[in-house]
Amino acid sequence: MFEHRHLLGIEHLKPSDITAILDRADTFATTPDSRAVRKDSLAGLTQINMFFENSTRTQASFEIAGKRLGADVMNMAMQASSIKKGETLIDTALTLNAMHPDLLVVRHPNSGAVALLAQKVNCAVINAGDGKHEHPTQALLDALTIRRRKGRLQRLTVAICGDIAHSRVARSNIMLLGKMENRVRLVGPRTLMPPGIEKFGVEVTDDMETGLKDADVVMMLRLQRERMDGGFIPSEREYYHRFGLDAAKLSHAKPDAIVMHPGPMNRGVEIDGEIADDINRSVIQEQVEMGVAVRMAVLEMLGEGRG
Amino acid sequence: MFEHRHLLGIEHLKPSDITAILDRADTFATTPDSRAVRKDSLAGLTQINMFFENSTRTQASFEIAGKRLGADVMNMAMQASSIKKGETLIDTALTLNAMHPDLLVVRHPNSGAVALLAQKVNCAVINAGDGKHEHPTQALLDALTIRRRKGRLQRLTVAICGDIAHSRVARSNIMLLGKMENRVRLVGPRTLMPPGIEKFGVEVTDDMETGLKDADVVMMLRLQRERMDGGFIPSEREYYHRFGLDAAKLSHAKPDAIVMHPGPMNRGVEIDGEIADDINRSVIQEQVEMGVAVRMAVLEMLGEGRG
Amino acid sequence: MFEHRHLLGIEHLKPSDITAILDRADTFATTPDSRAVRKDSLAGLTQINMFFENSTRTQASFEIAGKRLGADVMNMAMQASSIKKGETLIDTALTLNAMHPDLLVVRHPNSGAVALLAQKVNCAVINAGDGKHEHPTQALLDALTIRRRKGRLQRLTVAICGDIAHSRVARSNIMLLGKMENRVRLVGPRTLMPPGIEKFGVEVTDDMETGLKDADVVMMLRLQRERMDGGFIPSEREYYHRFGLDAAKLSHAKPDAIVMHPGPMNRGVEIDGEIADDINRSVIQEQVEMGVAVRMAVLEMLGEGRG
Repeated sequence: MFEHRHLLGIEHLKPSDITAILDRADTFATTPDSRAVRKDSLAGLTQINMFFENSTRTQASFEIAGKRLGADVMNMAMQASSIKKGETLIDTALTLNAMHPDLLVVRHPNSGAVALLAQKVNCAVINAGDGKHEHPTQALLDALTIRRRKGRLQRLTVAICGDIAHSRVARSNIMLLGKMENRVRLVGPRTLMPPGIEKFGVEVTDDMETGLKDADVVMMLRLQRERMDGGFIPSEREYYHRFGLDAAKLSHAKPDAIVMHPGPMNRGVEIDGEIADDINRSVIQEQVEMGVAVRMAVLEMLGEGRG
Repeated sequence: MFEHRHLLGIEHLKPSDITAILDRADTFATTPDSRAVRKDSLAGLTQINMFFENSTRTQASFEIAGKRLGADVMNMAMQASSIKKGETLIDTALTLNAMHPDLLVVRHPNSGAVALLAQKVNCAVINAGDGKHEHPTQALLDALTIRRRKGRLQRLTVAICGDIAHSRVARSNIMLLGKMENRVRLVGPRTLMPPGIEKFGVEVTDDMETGLKDADVVMMLRLQRERMDGGFIPSEREYYHRFGLDAAKLSHAKPDAIVMHPGPMNRGVEIDGEIADDINRSVIQEQVEMGVAVRMAVLEMLGEGRG
Repeated sequence: MFEHRHLLGIEHLKPSDITAILDRADTFATTPDSRAVRKDSLAGLTQINMFFENSTRTQASFEIAGKRLGADVMNMAMQASSIKKGETLIDTALTLNAMHPDLLVVRHPNSGAVALLAQKVNCAVINAGDGKHEHPTQALLDALTIRRRKGRLQRLTVAICGDIAHSRVARSNIMLLGKMENRVRLVGPRTLMPPGIEKFGVEVTDDMETGLKDADVVMMLRLQRERMDGGFIPSEREYYHRFGLDAAKLSHAKPDAIVMHPGPMNRGVEIDGEIADDINRSVIQEQVEMGVAVRMAVLEMLGEGRG
C-alpha cells in the first residue's frame, strides 16, 4: 500500500512505493485513446495547479491527468496574483486550503517551498518542481520510460549529462535510480557539478566518452540559463562541442542505448537535432506520454487516500 | 423567494434576501468534504468569470463554487484581451452575451461598470467587486462567518477599521450590517474616511480604543495602496502604530470578539501576525471557507431563476 | 460525409463540405438555452486551445463550444510558456501531441504555421487564425449568419470593405463566398489591397459607393494596426471619411442589406456606432452567436472522425 499523504520528493519514497506508482501508471499507458483511458476515480474532487513558475508541459500534463480522472481542475497563475500584493506564500496556501481543495500541485522557484507549504494544508500536495531541489514526477516518468524500454529498472548504467548543478530533474533521478540499484554516472563541466555529489554513490566525470561508455541510458539535461545567477555561463558553441550529444559521443554508449531529455530542448546546444528526432534512439516523446500516465497514477493514489 | 436577476450590490437586497442567501450557503458549509458537497444543480449552464482586475482568491472561490455545482466554468483574463485592441466594455459584454452564458461574474476597476454591463446582457450578473463601490459576496461571506460564530446577525457591535475610503468591502459591509440592525463603527484616519459616510447611520472615530470598545466583531481592512491615486499615503510604520490591530488595541473589544480580514493581509501593517494566526480570535480562514459556500448559494439561486 | 482530418482553411473545402458544416451548425443554433444545447458527443475527448496570439472572443467561443459538447477543454497561453525558453513550434507541437489530445485549436501569428504543425501531430487540428492567411471558422460563421438571414448562400452580392491586405477574415470569406457562387466586391484603399487579388474572381474598387451598390451584404473589416509593419497607416479621421460605414454610404446597398463585422470594432473608424447598433441592419451579435454553433459543428464532426 502507498501510505504517503503528499508526493514531495523521491527522497521519501521506498523502492516498493516507486514500483507501485509505476505499476499503476502502466495501466494508464497501454493505449493512446483518450476516451478509453478516461475514468471517474477523482470525480467530485478539486485539483488546483499552483504554478509560481511558468511551464507549458508540466502544467498541461497535470491538467490533462486530472481531467482524465474526472477531477475539477483549476489553474492558478501565481505571478499575476496576490503575490504582487505582498501576501506571503503561507498566507496564499492557507487561503487556498480554506477552499478545501483535495489535490494541490505546486511549482515554486525556491527549494523547500513546496514542503513548507505542505505542512500548512489539509490536502494532498504534489511537488511539480521546487527550485534546484526535486521534481519527483519527472524522475518517475523517466523511470517508467526506461522500464518499458529496457524491460527492467535495475542494474542499468545511466549517464546523466550536462548542467547537474541547476537541475532538480537530475537530483530526483539520481535518488530514484540509486534506490532501484542502478549505476549512475554524472557527466558535465566541473563548474556545473554540485559539490559533494559523490556522496549519493554516483560516478562523476567531465569527459563524455568516459561517461557514456557502455551506458544503457543517456539522459541529457537542459542548460538552465534562467537559474544561473551570476556564475559561470559557458558559450553555447563551446558547450556543444564538449558536452552536446552528437553521433560521435553517442557511439560510446551501448548500441541499443536510449536517449532521453526532459524538455524543452535547446537543439544544437545540449543535443544534436537529428539524434533528438531519431525514433530508434530517442524516447523524448515517450517521456512526455509517460508523464501523463505517471501523473494520473500519483493523483489517483493520493486521491484514494482522501476517500 | 429570491427574485433578483442579478447580484449587483447589497444596496438592492432586503433583509429577507440576505437571510435566504445565508441559509442556502449554510447547507454548503456543513462539511469540508468536497465530494459530499458536489452537486449538479448548474449542470449544463455556462459560467464566465470576467476579471478586469487580477484576483487570486475571489476568482478561485467563484471558480470552485461553480465547478462544485457542475457548471461549465470559464475564466477570461480581460487585461490580455480585446480591451487592448480598443474595444469598449459594452461591446465586450455584448459579444460574450451573444455566446449565451448563463452566469457572468465580473470584477472591474470602475465603480458602476458592472451595473452598466448588467443592463446590456441576458444572463445573470454577479458583481465580484467594482471600483470603490460594492463587493456584495464579500459582505455576505463576512455575514455568514459572523452569524455562525455569534449565533446571530443582529444587535452586534462591529468595528470596521482602516482604509474605509478606498474599500468596496467596507461599503458593502456597512450596508449589510445596517440592514440587519447592527451597530457599526468606522475607525480610521480622517483622510481615509469617505466624506458624508455618517448618513449611513454609522459612528465614526479616528481612535482605535474608542472604536473597538466592547465590539463583538473587529473587521480589519487592507491598505489599498493600489487604489490611492495621488492622495495621502501614510507611512506603514506610523499607520501600524495608530491603526494596526495588536493585542493592546484588541483588549478594548469584548473578550470573545472575533477578528476578521478580507485578505490578502499586509502583516505588520494593518494587523499583527500573531493575532491573525490566533485561532481563538481570528476567523480569517473561516471567511475564505464561507466565501465558497456563499458563492455556491448565489450562483445556485441565480441559476435556478434561469430554469 | 465530411472526410477531412483537420480544418486548416476554406481553401481545402468543397461546397458540399461547407453545406454539411452549416447544416450541422444550424442544429446548435436553434435555441439560446445552453442547457438544451448541451450534449456529450465529445465526452472523454481532450481539446487544447493553443493561442500564440491573444484573443477574447475566438478562444472563448471555442472553449464554450467544446465544453457544451462535453469535452475536457484546456487553454494554453503560449506567450507565457516554453516559447520563451527557446523551444521551437514543432517541439511544442510534438510535446502536446505526446499527451494525446484529440482536438487542437491553434492561433498563430505566422501564415502557414498551423498547417505545418498539423503535419506533425496525430490529433485533429483546427486553424483559429494564422497570420494573414486563413481564419476558416470566421468565414463559416459569417456564411451561417448570411444563410439564415438571406435564406440562401448563393447568388448574393457581398461587399467586403476595408483593410483587405492584412485580413485573414477577408481571405477566408473571399474563398468561401466564391466557392458558393456569390459575387464578391472588395472595397478599400489601394494600399490596403493585396496585389493580384483579382485572380480570385473578385471585383476591386476604392470607392464605397461603387462597391456597395445593390449589395445584399456589407462586411466591414477591422483596421489591423497591429499587423501593419512599417507600411502606410492612414489617419483614422481620413479613413472614416472615405471608408467608414455610415448611413450615407450604406444607402447605396439594397434596402434590406445586412451589415457584418468580425469584431472587435473600432467605432468611428471603420463603422459608425449607430449602424453597428441598428438591430434592423446589423447582424454583428448574431455573428458571435453563430460562431459558437459553427465551432460546435466543426469540433463534433472532427471528433466523430476519431471514434
